[in-house]
Order: sequence, then C-alpha cells, then structure tokens
Amino acid sequence: MLLQAAANYPVETFVIENDPQCPAAHLCDHFTKGDITNYEDVYNFGKGLDAITIEIESVNIEALKKLQDEGVKVYPRPEALEVIKNKIDQKKFYKENDIPTSAFVVTSKKEELNQHSHLLPAAHKLAMGGYDGRGVQLLKEQKDFEKAFDEDAVLEKLVHIKKEISVIVAMSDDGKSALYPPVEMIFNQDLNLLEYQLCPAIIGEKTLWKAEAIALTVVKKLKSAGIFAVELFIDIDDNVLVNETAPRVHNSGHHTIEAAYSSQFDMLWRIILGYPLGYTKQIMHSSMVNLIGEENYKGEAVYENLEEVLKIENAFVHIYGKRETRPGRKMGHVTILSNERQELIHIANKVKQLLKVVSK
Amino acid sequence: MLLQAAANYPVETFVIENDPQCPAAHLCDHFTKGDITNYEDVYNFGKGLDAITIEIESVNIEALKKLQDEGVKVYPRPEALEVIKNKIDQKKFYKENDIPTSAFVVTSKKEELNQHSHLLPAAHKLAMGGYDGRGVQLLKEQKDFEKAFDEDAVLEKLVHIKKEISVIVAMSDDGKSALYPPVEMIFNQDLNLLEYQLCPAIIGEKTLWKAEAIALTVVKKLKSAGIFAVELFIDIDDNVLVNETAPRVHNSGHHTIEAAYSSQFDMLWRIILGYPLGYTKQIMHSSMVNLIGEENYKGEAVYENLEEVLKIENAFVHIYGKRETRPGRKMGHVTILSNERQELIHIANKVKQLLKVVSK
Repeated sequence: MLLQAAANYPVETFVIENDPQCPAAHLCDHFTKGDITNYEDVYNFGKGLDAITIEIESVNIEALKKLQDEGVKVYPRPEALEVIKNKIDQKKFYKENDIPTSAFVVTSKKEELNQHSHLLPAAHKLAMGGYDGRGVQLLKEQKDFEKAFDEDAVLEKLVHIKKEISVIVAMSDDGKSALYPPVEMIFNQDLNLLEYQLCPAIIGEKTLWKAEAIALTVVKKLKSAGIFAVELFIDIDDNVLVNETAPRVHNSGHHTIEAAYSSQFDMLWRIILGYPLGYTKQIMHSSMVNLIGEENYKGEAVYENLEEVLKIENAFVHIYGKRETRPGRKMGHVTILSNERQELIHIANKVKQLLKVVSK
Repeated sequence: MLLQAAANYPVETFVIENDPQCPAAHLCDHFTKGDITNYEDVYNFGKGLDAITIEIESVNIEALKKLQDEGVKVYPRPEALEVIKNKIDQKKFYKENDIPTSAFVVTSKKEELNQHSHLLPAAHKLAMGGYDGRGVQLLKEQKDFEKAFDEDAVLEKLVHIKKEISVIVAMSDDGKSALYPPVEMIFNQDLNLLEYQLCPAIIGEKTLWKAEAIALTVVKKLKSAGIFAVELFIDIDDNVLVNETAPRVHNSGHHTIEAAYSSQFDMLWRIILGYPLGYTKQIMHSSMVNLIGEENYKGEAVYENLEEVLKIENAFVHIYGKRETRPGRKMGHVTILSNERQELIHIANKVKQLLKVVSK
C-alpha cells in the first residue's frame, strides 16, 4: 500500500525482504532479497539511500543507527523504534513522560510474579519478540502464574476497558503534526477477536480531547518524525490510557486510503520527501474489516465469496496478493464508506461473514 | 494507475513497453521490452496470457486478433479497436449505427476538398496516426484547403459547440454496463486548450439522458467489453453529437480515482477478472487539471511549485514519474474534491497557474 501511494510522487523506491515473491517485490523500482533482522543485510541495503522507513518493528536497529549516523534519514528514528520494540522500555517511557498507561511491573523470572498478585488480572508480555498476540499471556488468578514467562517481561494490570481506539499521528521533520480522527476497534466479546474498526470512534468530546492530547504527547516525546499509531484504552471511568504505540503505518489506518483526503501512506511519503503534511479530515465515515487466513488452511490462497463482496457498492476490497495463506495471516482488508453508522456496522458484519481466506 | 489499482486484486501483471525505464516497468510483475506496434513483439508477449488490455490505440491489431483467436481475452475487442483507430471507419461506424455525429466526407486527395466547401469551417483529420491534436488541420475557409492532407482523411463540419463532455462507459463480458457521471471539459477560449475538467458536467437533465443513451449505444454497437470514453459535443441547439471514442481508460476518467466509488482503473480490472462491475456513483464533485510538459523544456522533469499545490487540502496530486519532460507531454494530473462548484473552479485555476513541469 505504501508503494501504491509512492506511484503518485517522483520517488525511486527500494525494498528489502526475504521473500522475492512478496507483493512489494513487484511494486518497487529495486528489490533486494535480504533478512531485515540482519545487520549486514540492512546496512548494505540502506547505504547511500536518501531515506528509509519500516513496516514492521523487527528491522535491525543497529544497522538503522549506523545508517542514520551516515546521513540516511530514518523514519521512525531508530532510538524511537528501540524504545517501542522493547515492551519494558516502552512502558518505562510512558511512565517517565507522565503518559497515562496501565499499572505494571518488570519481571525477569517466573517466581517474581508472586510478589505482584495485586496487579491481577493482568497481561504478561515478553519484552522482545511479541507480535499480534504472540508473546502475551493472560493471567487471571494466582494459579495462572505458572503460565508466566521466565524471562524479561512486563506484567500489566488489566484495564476495565470500555473502548479501544487508535489515533494515527503524522509528524514531519520540522515538527509539524497532524492527527487523524480516532478509530474504534469493535471486538467479539466471546472470542476477544477484532470484528471490525469504525471511524470516527464513538466517544465524547472530552475523551476525544484527552485521546488526541495523549497521542500527540507520545509522538512528541519519542522525538521522531514519521507515522505513528497510538493505541489507547478508554476505561469504564473514561480515563484514557496508552496501550501501545506502533512507529509506522498501521492496520488501524488502512481506512484512510479511501476515507481521508491524505491516506496514512500518502502522508508518510509527504514526510519522507519533505513535502507539506496532508489533510487528515475524513471524506466519509468508514468501517474496516481485516481479511485473516482461516484456521486449518495453509497454502495457495482462495478468497471465498469475493464476488459477493465486490457487489457491495460502497465496499473497497484490498487483497494484498500474498500467495500463501496460513491461519491468522493478514491477507487483505475491506473498507466501507457511509455516513450511516448502522450501514457501516451492517456491511462490516456482512463482509466478515462472507469473505473467507482459505486454501486450494 | 492501472497497475496501482491492480495491487488490490490477486492478479499477476505483465507489461510490454519500449522504454524499460517507464513508470509501469516497476509496478508490474513481469516487464517485457518491446514495440507495441510490432506484430511479433505483441504476439510473443501475449501468447499464453489470460487477458490483455491496452492504454493506447497504436497497439498492433493483427497480433491482438491472433491472440484473441488463440483464446486470450482482449479488452477492447481488436475489431472495436480497429474501427476506432481509423478515423474514417469510426465516422462510418457512427453513421451506419444512426449515432449522431457531425457531417463529414471521406477524402483521399487534397484536390477533392474543393467539392466539399459546404462543410466549412471544418476539421480535416488523418485516418490513421492522429493523437492528441496531431494529424488534425482546422480549415476555416476555402483558401485553407492547401493545408489539407493529401492522403486518406475525413473532413468533418465543425460543430457550434456549447460544451464538450465525456461519458466513461464500463461494459462487462456478460453485457452488463455502468456509466460514470459525465465530465465537462473547460477550454481556454483564446488558446483552445483544455483548462480543466469538471464532474459532473453542468448540463440539463434531457441533455444528460441523450448523452447517456448515445454513449451506451456507441459501446453496445462496438460489441466489446472494456472501458470506453465517449467524447461528446453539445451544440448550441442542445443536440448531442459524438466527437470520438477511446476504447480504454481515459484522461477524462482520472478523477474517478478519488471521486467515484470504483475508479475507471478498478472497473477495468473487475471487467478483466470477471468480477461484478463497480459502483460509478460519485463520492464528491471534482475538477481535474492535467500536468503538461511546458513549451521549451525538454529533459529531466522538475515540478515547479509542487509544494504549494501539496498544501491545498482537497487536492490529490498524481505525478506519473516519467523521467523526461517535453512540450505537451502528459506528466501527471491533480484532482480536486469539493461539493462547491466555485471552489472546484477556483482551485483548478490555482493549480493550473502554480504547477509547471519544466526541466533542469
């Protein structure tokens, strides 16, 4: 999606990825096969480029630092990425900067948890390597401590969540910022899985102000240009707490492709190219459904009922073109535009029920 | 733009072009350097593909016919392309199918024109090879006949034009059709150059019905699936006459990227892939300005005042990424969204005045 947006600007694009058949490989000017977690691969790739950005946090930070030292502009700054990548450092960063977040303690051995049962129910998160639900254990009561991690991790008191929202923040090199309207994540209460997203989030004006102030503070304190998704909890007392921050274009901003004047992808190019920031106002209200590889299917992807979904007049289908599906893999998304909230919800549910990613 | 839209669907793309540095070369899965006017190049390129489409009429028709015979789906049908490509055949096609068009005669020698002075003032158009104003001579009075072509051409009586509009028509293989709202071309009266486009065109309801009926008839009679731009004159008596038809995605449909639910590019993929047609309703009213290489500049392109235009909140900039500019070359376009007509016009003029494509 970033490369689709790049095609609107005079820019030469370079991509590094291990899979030469990945969708991005055929949408860039120059493709390099390489391991983004490997110092040499990232350094050699980035040497001599004007600017670099990332789409996943696992990119080798030392290489990014070295490149930055040598004059390559890096979005986000490697120092910001480093803070975010380590869940312990990320929580400490919020605390040190008086940014509201849930109560937590840092642990490094399973046995330490017994001292912190006052935080129960809690989430235990590995400091490094967690992604999309991996590296997280829910600990409801003391006996769950045996499921806890026996390595560097952070124990976070669970928040009584009323809503989960995300604010996408754009920050330019010269310190100008722009915020997109908050997105609300709607979960299936039984399965605790994201059902769909709604934009704008249905929140009161004061909660909106708090959310915007907090999101902007997070990005200012990270001292980095780029695109950031600040994921926030609104608790039952309307407190706004930071859950976590992603220092990159983000799933919660995909609707901006159709629903905003400047999409998050367009905006990141504007930042990288030193152009003025784009306009974050929404063109229409929207909902968004992720297309996730179904359980028990692995192999060449098939999109069940795609034609039915393509018949929906106000639905925008994005199939990412990944060849293989596997359970839980993000294979695409569908954005729905309407200024009728009930229609946004109704069609999101319809898309969710219809469109399934299976394999041959 | 077609390849940007392709990235939303599970499709493998192949491009043939003579310039391996053309923008499309880096946005497709497989690039072939070749001459699109050459039989062998086109045939060898297309052999074994599922489907082919074109972005310019000059593609070798015999090769497309051979490929179609061998089972490759071709959009538009080569027979429809053949009719359109030859301006004599195109005019005859309208006449044979009772499609209103300006009075004309076919000429093959300069001296024949003396018999047709009742058609003056007229346009003399070469049967083959004209494009974007080339191959056309305006003949106002008898003494202009010396500027006429001494080869196969068509002499068309000039229409007393009130407005020029374009209707983009989508036609699927199973005969389903969809029309986009008409676009109005606004010309600089002094220079007779396109200033900007406005969508929807400002025309009465009856004129709209006539335009839609005529545009749809043209495409039905061409008996071809694909995307078609039917360019129409509205004369001072509100007659609607076909000027010409383009059997492909067209400049007059570029605003649909942002202004319609399904863009002309998205629509063409839906047609090629056998998916349901998209929704042609407009999301907002729009205007569109082409970025044309300035006179007297040739070489590596520079976009003067690009930053100023990027500051305009409701403007969408598309720089095509062609390396070299030359006078008259289409280098990009800017779409403006607003439901206020005066704003659409004001900003279109502002963009037109600001953004200039020059060279280093």
